[in-house]
Amino acid sequence: MNPTIDLVADLGEGFGAYRIGNDAELLDIVSSANIACGFHAGDPDIMHSTVAECVRRGVGIGAHPSFPDLRGFGRRAMDLTEDEVRNDVVYQLGALSAFAAFHGARVSHLAPHGRLGNLVATRPDYAAAVADAAAGVDDSLIVLAQEGELARAARARGLRVALVGIADRAYQEDGTLVPRSVPGAVLHDPQEIVERTVRMVCEGKITTVSGTDLDVEADTVLLHGDNEGAVELARLIRSELTAAGVRIAPLADVLAEKYPVA
Amino acid sequence: MNPTIDLVADLGEGFGAYRIGNDAELLDIVSSANIACGFHAGDPDIMHSTVAECVRRGVGIGAHPSFPDLRGFGRRAMDLTEDEVRNDVVYQLGALSAFAAFHGARVSHLAPHGRLGNLVATRPDYAAAVADAAAGVDDSLIVLAQEGELARAARARGLRVALVGIADRAYQEDGTLVPRSVPGAVLHDPQEIVERTVRMVCEGKITTVSGTDLDVEADTVLLHGDNEGAVELARLIRSELTAAGVRIAPLADVLAEKYPVA
Amino acid sequence: MNPTIDLVADLGEGFGAYRIGNDAELLDIVSSANIACGFHAGDPDIMHSTVAECVRRGVGIGAHPSFPDLRGFGRRAMDLTEDEVRNDVVYQLGALSAFAAFHGARVSHLAPHGRLGNLVATRPDYAAAVADAAAGVDDSLIVLAQEGELARAARARGLRVALVGIADRAYQEDGTLVPRSVPGAVLHDPQEIVERTVRMVCEGKITTVSGTDLDVEADTVLLHGDNEGAVELARLIRSELTAAGVRIAPLADVLAEKYPVA
Amino acid sequence: MNPTIDLVADLGEGFGAYRIGNDAELLDIVSSANIACGFHAGDPDIMHSTVAECVRRGVGIGAHPSFPDLRGFGRRAMDLTEDEVRNDVVYQLGALSAFAAFHGARVSHLAPHGRLGNLVATRPDYAAAVADAAAGVDDSLIVLAQEGELARAARARGLRVALVGIADRAYQEDGTLVPRSVPGAVLHDPQEIVERTVRMVCEGKITTVSGTDLDVEADTVLLHGDNEGAVELARLIRSELTAAGVRIAPLADVLAEKYPVA
Repeated sequence: MNPTIDLVADLGEGFGAYRIGNDAELLDIVSSANIACGFHAGDPDIMHSTVAECVRRGVGIGAHPSFPDLRGFGRRAMDLTEDEVRNDVVYQLGALSAFAAFHGARVSHLAPHGRLGNLVATRPDYAAAVADAAAGVDDSLIVLAQEGELARAARARGLRVALVGIADRAYQEDGTLVPRSVPGAVLHDPQEIVERTVRMVCEGKITTVSGTDLDVEADTVLLHGDNEGAVELARLIRSELTAAGVRIAPLADVLAEKYPVA
Repeated sequence: MNPTIDLVADLGEGFGAYRIGNDAELLDIVSSANIACGFHAGDPDIMHSTVAECVRRGVGIGAHPSFPDLRGFGRRAMDLTEDEVRNDVVYQLGALSAFAAFHGARVSHLAPHGRLGNLVATRPDYAAAVADAAAGVDDSLIVLAQEGELARAARARGLRVALVGIADRAYQEDGTLVPRSVPGAVLHDPQEIVERTVRMVCEGKITTVSGTDLDVEADTVLLHGDNEGAVELARLIRSELTAAGVRIAPLADVLAEKYPVA
Repeated sequence: MNPTIDLVADLGEGFGAYRIGNDAELLDIVSSANIACGFHAGDPDIMHSTVAECVRRGVGIGAHPSFPDLRGFGRRAMDLTEDEVRNDVVYQLGALSAFAAFHGARVSHLAPHGRLGNLVATRPDYAAAVADAAAGVDDSLIVLAQEGELARAARARGLRVALVGIADRAYQEDGTLVPRSVPGAVLHDPQEIVERTVRMVCEGKITTVSGTDLDVEADTVLLHGDNEGAVELARLIRSELTAAGVRIAPLADVLAEKYPVA
Repeated sequence: MNPTIDLVADLGEGFGAYRIGNDAELLDIVSSANIACGFHAGDPDIMHSTVAECVRRGVGIGAHPSFPDLRGFGRRAMDLTEDEVRNDVVYQLGALSAFAAFHGARVSHLAPHGRLGNLVATRPDYAAAVADAAAGVDDSLIVLAQEGELARAARARGLRVALVGIADRAYQEDGTLVPRSVPGAVLHDPQEIVERTVRMVCEGKITTVSGTDLDVEADTVLLHGDNEGAVELARLIRSELTAAGVRIAPLADVLAEKYPVA
């Protein structure tokens, strides 16, 4: 059978009069969206229109909660307690869920943003906070993560986990990413990124920095849209995946195959 | 049959390290709560613990959305569009709903706060915004209002409306309140307020400023808790209503009698 | 003697990761800047770097205070008291002054932003609030305004007033602008805007919507930089003024001629 | 000659409708105030009235800048860069300075609040940020600190440093405070705290946790006003110091003796 994959990107990251990213173009490429919920970006008006566009195009709706730091775009660590993180995630998840309901849809997944998104991979307390928020609000939510503390915490609560493949980052042999501070951590050659993506999706393998093959499981591939080149690359990834016979579908569809109902 | 009434108060109006009101005491008196949702007061931690207390005691959970003006406590008018008001209400309603879900409960009603609460009585655009938000997110929500534009807009969308009686305010012959700027608009004598409340609930009548009797319909009575005297008065109102044979019950129960399922 | 004029634009209107406008290009064109102070746009980091650039290029530093409404970019009216407006302006003015001091410079002028900027032309209370703030913090400040309540209030407190000419807006015979809601209120033809600017500066006259000539006094001309066309137009205005023999200089220099020290 | 000491407390820590502390009573006890600048507490209206009261009573005005975290009351660490901290402090210091100027006074000192206040004692980068902000805005400012990185950084920039004695905290033999997490770190017996304060001011000595005597230099003593007992204790400290012949004076006066003009 042909493989199925989700393509996801961060959307709705403007605020008030400000805009970041090329949402209109990305919405034609992705099958799922991580939508900002007002803490690092996004406001009720932008959430309303972003969710409306997702519903119109059948793009899956995901919450993209963050530390409460609009000025730092959620990229600065804040020393919050586990309870504070959980409550902040519940709040943001609820806010987005209401816009989904307003448009006759549901939030399908949750993907922590920025620094919070980094920390949940290694901090058990923040991982528990995010997983508790998701499980407490809606236990049908999919948690989007790389392997790590959040994936573990989500599974422990009976939540479905969608694993993210990141085709423009170098992988180490243990499956973790080469840290950004190391030269070569981020790949820039579009052709190489496309080929890695197709191989990851079709063969379940990626070449590590040391040249060996690594088994990787990916339910979704993270795309970027910050500049014109990024949108072009995203479009190329989609067309090459399609050309390779891969089916592009929202996360909920991909996971329905992975987690069949008993 | 003995009348049934809800007693409601604004709760959870602290922010961060700040506290306003006597929530702990009021929670033993009221049957429903209007809970701040972060825009004029309230934050995720306070919303979490306030909803938890309501669930523990069987107090009905209501959303208390506001203009986005923490510094002005939602008391200052802002020149928002109808869409902006609707989106702000959807956002706040959703955030509170997630805390309700987290604690295994649901938001039962919605009551706009402060200046927004004043304006929806007379501005059809803001009334439509609030009613659209409620109907769009959850059409089983009860809208708490006095007679006016919001009550009309809510009924037009098939929403149930709970009418608020305000026993410590002077009524005009047309059923509207005497404006605060007019001397005598606010009553201060506890005994008088208690008697007016009991008569309003048991007989459906209140004495207007001109001394005539006015028919009033009240599903809930608004209590205050800003100072020690207010809490004492609230407690007295509850005990005198009970002594008069009135049943105190959450809004959802009161409205179940008023809007029987077909 | 050749006329002297200041060219001013709104700068530093980003926030956190967000950017609006073409500051780098405008800084080569203007002689003064209205710098956002954090209430509608701007943050301490952006204020720091914008002031640094102004000092490096000899561009005059002006405070651009606003209603406290980041999400609305200061364009939405808020029902503040006169004291609240005055205190908000004192706060913002002080914050910018500290960055000026840090870079060895001073704030030369103050120009209210957005909706506050509109309202001070007609509301005596808000005009008094802004003028009191300026006079109370630093009575050597220049207040940038069109003729109206703010100009009156500033003069009444002994402050110097710089009158703004707005070349891309149609004027009525009484010297006020045609409201934006009226067709033809905003001019779009670059050549016409440039010619009106040169005539306003060199002859002190502008053609009204009814075709008559109106005497106008302008100490500064407001330029825009929101898009590529706007920057091109701004550059053209500067070069045509220079070609006409006009000297471009910061507001403080222009006003030194108008308000000679006794 | 009789010793001179300043008594200082944190003031103006309300926000909007919220109040914390007993400012009215503390203002009759202290000779200097650390005034919140809007980032952890305080808003333009509160800053205006707090500065006005300080000027009226001759209480020294100090800036109390914080991490930008109103919800966390500045008590939560944030991972800011050195430049971000410096710019945030410049902004807050400037805002308060404008209110001082408005009331015909000047900011005399600067004392970082909460978690930032803790971190500057040990982090050279944050210490440099705060000292650079003070030196860059007004090199006549006094920096209030305990011995540590901030005191060092301030002296290195030619700023005057006022050392704070904290009479209700246990000292270790090296002059640092016993961490709050250790039992006995905070003293509660009013009589003991008063005696320690008088001895610290009059003899320059304090008894450490191990019972030995430690030389301590204090230019000011930090008082609290969070509850009724704290205000009573503050009042007692003032009266006992006065009874012991100590002169209470604003920081600027105390430091004038310590740093005589050459």
